Amino acid sequence: MNAPGSTRTVTPPEHVFDWLDDAAAQRAEAGLVRTLTPRTAEAHRLDLAGNDYLGLAHDKRVAGAAAAAALKWGAGATGSRLVTGTTELHAELEYELARFCGTQAALVFSSGFAANLGAVTALTGREAAIVTDKYIHASLIEGCRLSRADVAAVAHKDTAAVGHALATRRKDRALVVTDSVFSVDGDLAPLRELSAVCRQHSAALLVDDAHGLGVLGEGGRGAVHAAGLAGEPDVVITLTLSKSLGAQGGAVLGPRRVIKHLVDTARSFIFDTALAPASAAAALAALRVLRDEPELAERVRGRAAELAFRLSEAGFAVSEPEGAVVSVRAPGPDEAVAWAARCAENGVRVGCFRPPSVPDGVSRLRLTARADLTDTDVDRAVTVITGTAPPDAGR
Amino acid sequence: MNAPGSTRTVTPPEHVFDWLDDAAAQRAEAGLVRTLTPRTAEAHRLDLAGNDYLGLAHDKRVAGAAAAAALKWGAGATGSRLVTGTTELHAELEYELARFCGTQAALVFSSGFAANLGAVTALTGREAAIVTDKYIHASLIEGCRLSRADVAAVAHKDTAAVGHALATRRKDRALVVTDSVFSVDGDLAPLRELSAVCRQHSAALLVDDAHGLGVLGEGGRGAVHAAGLAGEPDVVITLTLSKSLGAQGGAVLGPRRVIKHLVDTARSFIFDTALAPASAAAALAALRVLRDEPELAERVRGRAAELAFRLSEAGFAVSEPEGAVVSVRAPGPDEAVAWAARCAENGVRVGCFRPPSVPDGVSRLRLTARADLTDTDVDRAVTVITGTAPPDAGR
Ligand SMILES: Cc1ncc(COP(=O)(O)O)c(C=O)c1O
Ligand SMILES: Cc1ncc(COP(=O)(O)O)c(C=O)c1O
Repeated sequence: MNAPGSTRTVTPPEHVFDWLDDAAAQRAEAGLVRTLTPRTAEAHRLDLAGNDYLGLAHDKRVAGAAAAAALKWGAGATGSRLVTGTTELHAELEYELARFCGTQAALVFSSGFAANLGAVTALTGREAAIVTDKYIHASLIEGCRLSRADVAAVAHKDTAAVGHALATRRKDRALVVTDSVFSVDGDLAPLRELSAVCRQHSAALLVDDAHGLGVLGEGGRGAVHAAGLAGEPDVVITLTLSKSLGAQGGAVLGPRRVIKHLVDTARSFIFDTALAPASAAAALAALRVLRDEPELAERVRGRAAELAFRLSEAGFAVSEPEGAVVSVRAPGPDEAVAWAARCAENGVRVGCFRPPSVPDGVSRLRLTARADLTDTDVDRAVTVITGTAPPDAGR
Repeated sequence: MNAPGSTRTVTPPEHVFDWLDDAAAQRAEAGLVRTLTPRTAEAHRLDLAGNDYLGLAHDKRVAGAAAAAALKWGAGATGSRLVTGTTELHAELEYELARFCGTQAALVFSSGFAANLGAVTALTGREAAIVTDKYIHASLIEGCRLSRADVAAVAHKDTAAVGHALATRRKDRALVVTDSVFSVDGDLAPLRELSAVCRQHSAALLVDDAHGLGVLGEGGRGAVHAAGLAGEPDVVITLTLSKSLGAQGGAVLGPRRVIKHLVDTARSFIFDTALAPASAAAALAALRVLRDEPELAERVRGRAAELAFRLSEAGFAVSEPEGAVVSVRAPGPDEAVAWAARCAENGVRVGCFRPPSVPDGVSRLRLTARADLTDTDVDRAVTVITGTAPPDAGR
């Protein structure tokens, strides 16, 4: 560090990024280097790693709608939502999302990440307090950081701690922020209790239902709907179109005045090119499939429950699945990576979550059920995961 | 504001968001309410508002590639880049983007907004100083806010001020951040001078070439390539795939170690579903069109220059277009909105930029040229814009 005005030795351009090599060496030491492995179009028949919970990404109605929209509307939206990017497809998708989930209005963003940034920042600001569960998704955390609000992250699913943080806040306005289904372990937030505590303390509630839509609630209407909170005047929902709906994009759902406020003020909405027509059309088609086949939601939950039951019978430390996510504890990050690799060699793709992507520092395999898994698929998954387990995998 | 422990009067749920109505009333008073107007699929023949500079969003090769990819790869990528979201399409697009623009490596994000967040945050942090032009794009500003670095925003295109801020910084590491073509007026950053000042002060340079790709440089290789800086070890480029490439998505290009660092640490990369296959395929197809038809870049610049020349001959205050963007000053926000509406009624769609989307508070029409505009299109645009101008439009 130099004092202002002091003479600094000049670093030659080729050494300006040398610090990245030190950072890379530290990550290597800690087992935290990641590699991108391109996959081919021959979908792994047994993919328990993706978030395509209802198997709709490859559904002909959904992929076909994407293809038709690209040809009709063009490959891109050509501009931001407020300039040229709002097509009739976007408007229809917003209308149907709101109707399906039971809110007054909806607003589509280019990703769930952008929806979370926009909702959290536009609904708070310097004059507000935010209270969050400490295990919320990274995109919500980024939103909190950007907001300039007072932020308190409390213990996981600790409603009393939320109440205490609200009671002792220094700002009048407050927003409580949580995932409905937590992305790492698939456990459920106590939404009703959270809403009650919000109301005791005059706070609004924002729920990220990314892993609830299509999986929980009546016909897959999500965890907020299941908790009876979807149309409430003090509740805001954020969604992604990239998991159960098999597409890309995100959305914020809630009271009409909240949506209007986002249109005028959410920077990740205003300064971002609109979602591509193909993705909007795919999400809309998937939503209609879900509306016509409400049993899909129940089916994916059943598959998750079965996977969890059988793996726990086999002696592993398995999370209780509330939705589609089943988490299996691994002894450590290196063991988790090797275990997942052995599963892949045996034709079963599983997720591998390790620090810093896990809030509690515990490495695990993360399995996601799909509505279209067959009995044979489940058998094979259990056989391969069991047969490739490290000796000390909590059995 | 309450002191900790004090008793707060409880607000009924239906009044929790009442503050939004006050905020909306204030925006209405200031003329800052925005409306989303869905467009139909019949593309306005004369669209001077979108950012589809080369007219490729509707090109059969590009839209066709998007459609084919949706059918082959599915409507969505099904997961984040590090889990299931990296397809061969993403890898190919990264390889070809880096080759085309002349960098060692590239990394694709779900949007240009996400690319900017990821690059700025991952390359800085608490131990770094950032110096920016004060007119940089909102997504770069959000990245700076998220980064926790010391941030100094200096006067527009003031290289001496950048040097001064670098010389007086309190952190060893530094990153200078700029747009190449500024999005509002279409003016160009002094990239060579900026690079020289960075080197005097051992700082890295990050350039957002969103409006340069496809428009500036040899065959549309962008403004950084044109400045001879594309392969430099201390320069990082961010791009969007949603303007000249007619698709959706974003990318970061630069030295290989920078890209590796982003894979391991950029939160808007790690915690975000991968770009949809259709959008990746469209961007790749557009890039190949551009490579095969290098004259497209020159053509769009020629169209912009002609629009600017003719409007300035007609007496308007028009920006000097360095790329595809032509900005025409309006007397005020209400006049700008009305002017743009009259253009639309006459079949010419133009952009309307007003506070808070303009850094200098000046409202203007923003026209974007396209490579496929005919002479008749340009005539008609000039006639309509002139014929609908408010009496005091700087003439
Ligand atoms: C809980 C949660 N919220 C938000 C997101 C972000 O959504 P997207 O991938 O559409 O950006 C994800 C996953 O990616 C998620 O798991
Ligand atoms: C200069 C600049 N950078 C970044 C972006 C963001 O890119 P995207 O729209 O792909 O998110 C835009 C426009 O949207 C832009 O104009």
